[in-house]
Amino acid sequence: MIEITSPDQFRKKQRTGIPKQIFDRVESVLSEVELRGFEAVQEYSRIFDKFEINTENLKVSEGEIQIAPELISTLEKETIDIVFERVEKIQTSIAKSALAETKEQIGSGYVCFKPRPTERIGIYVPGGVAPLPSSLLMAGITARAAGVKEIIVCTPPQKNGISPAILYVAKKLGIKDIYQIGGAQAIASMTYGLQNLLFKVDMVCGPGNVYVAAAKQLVSSKGIIKIDLVAGPSEVLIIADQSANAQYIAADMLAQAEHGTNSPAILLTNSKELAEKVKKEVEQQLSWLKNNETAIASIRNFSAIVLIDDLDQAIEIANEYAPEHLEVFTKDSERTASKLTTAGAIFINTCESFADYGMSGGNHILPTGGTARFLSGLSVYDFVVRTYIEYMTDEDQAELAQKTSIFADLEGLEAHSNAARLRGVIK
Amino acid sequence: MIEITSPDQFRKKQRTGIPKQIFDRVESVLSEVELRGFEAVQEYSRIFDKFEINTENLKVSEGEIQIAPELISTLEKETIDIVFERVEKIQTSIAKSALAETKEQIGSGYVCFKPRPTERIGIYVPGGVAPLPSSLLMAGITARAAGVKEIIVCTPPQKNGISPAILYVAKKLGIKDIYQIGGAQAIASMTYGLQNLLFKVDMVCGPGNVYVAAAKQLVSSKGIIKIDLVAGPSEVLIIADQSANAQYIAADMLAQAEHGTNSPAILLTNSKELAEKVKKEVEQQLSWLKNNETAIASIRNFSAIVLIDDLDQAIEIANEYAPEHLEVFTKDSERTASKLTTAGAIFINTCESFADYGMSGGNHILPTGGTARFLSGLSVYDFVVRTYIEYMTDEDQAELAQKTSIFADLEGLEAHSNAARLRGVIK
Repeated sequence: MIEITSPDQFRKKQRTGIPKQIFDRVESVLSEVELRGFEAVQEYSRIFDKFEINTENLKVSEGEIQIAPELISTLEKETIDIVFERVEKIQTSIAKSALAETKEQIGSGYVCFKPRPTERIGIYVPGGVAPLPSSLLMAGITARAAGVKEIIVCTPPQKNGISPAILYVAKKLGIKDIYQIGGAQAIASMTYGLQNLLFKVDMVCGPGNVYVAAAKQLVSSKGIIKIDLVAGPSEVLIIADQSANAQYIAADMLAQAEHGTNSPAILLTNSKELAEKVKKEVEQQLSWLKNNETAIASIRNFSAIVLIDDLDQAIEIANEYAPEHLEVFTKDSERTASKLTTAGAIFINTCESFADYGMSGGNHILPTGGTARFLSGLSVYDFVVRTYIEYMTDEDQAELAQKTSIFADLEGLEAHSNAARLRGVIK
Repeated sequence: MIEITSPDQFRKKQRTGIPKQIFDRVESVLSEVELRGFEAVQEYSRIFDKFEINTENLKVSEGEIQIAPELISTLEKETIDIVFERVEKIQTSIAKSALAETKEQIGSGYVCFKPRPTERIGIYVPGGVAPLPSSLLMAGITARAAGVKEIIVCTPPQKNGISPAILYVAKKLGIKDIYQIGGAQAIASMTYGLQNLLFKVDMVCGPGNVYVAAAKQLVSSKGIIKIDLVAGPSEVLIIADQSANAQYIAADMLAQAEHGTNSPAILLTNSKELAEKVKKEVEQQLSWLKNNETAIASIRNFSAIVLIDDLDQAIEIANEYAPEHLEVFTKDSERTASKLTTAGAIFINTCESFADYGMSGGNHILPTGGTARFLSGLSVYDFVVRTYIEYMTDEDQAELAQKTSIFADLEGLEAHSNAARLRGVIK
């Protein structure tokens, strides 16, 4: 079922991206919604979600949001409350530096690099297979910590109404505009707006299926709005030595694998004994799962147990692979982790399950597919826009006019040179 | 030549984007370079730059870089030195918050949001019409202030060698790898690498023509690398009242207009007298320019003088338009500027000419086409990647195992639930 392999073999393994034909289909959804607005959304809802949407049921009513807390169990509510508090604590702390203003004197003038929260954002909350309140928690708390005032939500319509867990989270976040729109048509609606039914946003965030990911990528590349991240298949890389617990590792690999049929779960270990134990555990635990088709596909086609020489080699491979999730179970996990530079999130002595639900405090919207080389997990930083404000005195301009015009001449920009030279004489 | 118009008329004016056929042509350049590497680059250099490139002249020699300071005038050198110092001062100051590490206790564990500089970046320095050392200054100083270690440069080949001003700036930045490659093939080379001739980077920055912009947009949307910004046509919006100097404003509008044939230069004023004066000045100053074809096209087709009721209306329009450059010349410019929220850079009592050359201290790589609603000008923040590091104690995990598994069950993720529940018993 899962192979034990060498680093060289592992390096040849490919991760998957979004297939081209998906982009073509999504492109047409985007242009139809841009052109025909709500009418197009109605058609797609009928086709993809088997749901008749109209101006009445498009938006979740205030009553439904108000009653949500009474429709979930006390234990569920307590759980959401704990997660809320933990994620909020970290993002509030990050906000201190993310929203810091820089002001510095330059000559007799100044430069200020002034931050402000993004004005209006849209959060996509998946709900096709199961409702994902945790996604709303992660994106919503982070945006609020940044000071974002206007937040709207799109989530696929459900026969029995939107999950009360999602509505409870929305209520805690003070979100009132929740639209029953799913898939690429939701991203299109938030990007272009639906006349007076839904106003367009400046930024779209939240994970989704491959259609949602493709739609986000397309609207972002057109430069119309900002997006958080394009989430590819979720992935975990685990570094472990002989001191690690094989049962935990196998359980974590399966938790990763159940995310999708192409979710890599990789173990790097220098212990042949652990490798064999994990292999056995994976097979055993798989047989206990009620629904294991998805996990089986990922384990068989995208996962591997890689035997490495020593932990240094593991660190080298991990930094190169730049995984979304990186778990460390070694004799001195903190020491091992200190040498890891390139991952969305690194878990020391814990696992993605706790992290996915914010129990460990971080964010679960993370860069995938090796993009952790240059992208960061979602944080307050992503919701901050900054403007350079530059003030110069007349004296400074007079003094620098000649030098500025020299630079402009060097670049062949005559009118720039003129504009500077004009300031060369104090009136 | 330039029309005096109303806010309603102005709002109908369209800004231009990158035409679709450009994307198609650039897409083929990208895939050829990905597939055939240096051979493809040689062909494109022959076609687009009329330059025979080989493994010998691909890279600028160390000797050429060393001798550069002797090939430019003392005044040019002094000018570059002043700009360097000013831009570096601001970015070093921004680095303090951009590189701040957040560490916060969560339960009996902790979360650390750890920053690091992007490892390896490529800067594109335009040079088709005229060499643009200022672009290298802006991107290079900012990257170095963030701590980026590896920087390479691509710039179009020139018959008489790369401009010594560009090489002087490179020398000051400690950049040794300067490749004579221009256009979309340069972006492709930095994205995919050219075997052992040029190693691929994690991020590409710097402005360029429409082919460069399209190439950056495409490689970014594929998720292969990060880019700074996709620069559309440069633009200025000026807010002025009757106290403003019409000569300055006209000069600034022309400085904007000479950037390209589709560069909007917009004046919002509540003074009919100023509007008339600026109109006259624009026409007069245009006639003084040696090369005015570009500026004439932009002034005629994309620029406008807009008569507004009062400054509040100007502020509303400006925040909506979200211009790249926003100049303020009012009786109390600082007060007016304090109400402006949405622009790449706001210049108080000064102009883009000083800002383009870093004299006012900011960065000239700024969001265009209204993207300032959600994007910021280039700064140290763009070169920082952050990783969540999450540590949980066994006790915390045992305590939270049940609640985590409840959340996982709520989302229908069985293996997640298992992985959490396994940690529920302390060994």
